[in-house]
Amino acid sequence: MNALGKQLLLELKGCDKEVMNDLGFLKEVMMKAANEAGATVLGDSFHQFNPHGVSGAVIIAESHLFIHTWPEYGYAAVDIFTCGDSVQPEKAAEILVRELGAKNHSVLELQRGLLETH
Amino acid sequence: MNALGKQLLLELKGCDKEVMNDLGFLKEVMMKAANEAGATVLGDSFHQFNPHGVSGAVIIAESHLFIHTWPEYGYAAVDIFTCGDSVQPEKAAEILVRELGAKNHSVLELQRGLLETH
Repeated sequence: MNALGKQLLLELKGCDKEVMNDLGFLKEVMMKAANEAGATVLGDSFHQFNPHGVSGAVIIAESHLFIHTWPEYGYAAVDIFTCGDSVQPEKAAEILVRELGAKNHSVLELQRGLLETH
Repeated sequence: MNALGKQLLLELKGCDKEVMNDLGFLKEVMMKAANEAGATVLGDSFHQFNPHGVSGAVIIAESHLFIHTWPEYGYAAVDIFTCGDSVQPEKAAEILVRELGAKNHSVLELQRGLLETH
């Protein structure tokens, strides 16, 4: 059985609080991660919350990337969902961990769409 | 330790193939799921793929909902990511399973942002 999709769930802790609240920077890093992973970006939607926090989606032809930040805890949840073999989600993960300056992180890899007929 | 976010990962199988390729309907159902769960919708981004398949994100003030469909397999991957106590992600999941006519489904619940300092 092959999986149709692969999903990396990143828990990023100990991140810089100012970075976690900087929509412009976060969007730039998410786009860089998508591009360097070999993904084709189709659209994005980023939102700044009051008093703090940013949510952002990057829609790619091969699925999506998502980030939610909690600056007050120096924490970000990131998902990288890809399908096909042309994208390297691990490359995107590596960039995000590095650029967001996470002191601690974990990555959970899930397979989506395990179909017997596939 | 409390979690900052809760994520439901739905594997929807045996869905109607035409429904899985109907962007308008999928968007409507995703919006309905978000609204009936008590979420505040901030934006959305849906894309139709050629020859088939739809990807869609709904950004809510409490995080996001996401769907990717593979009509050729009658399969959809759905994520419902929420934070706070005002939203009922289970309600959104129930609506999506029902409206998309999944003959088989599974739900995996994950906690995101388990912080010792929280």
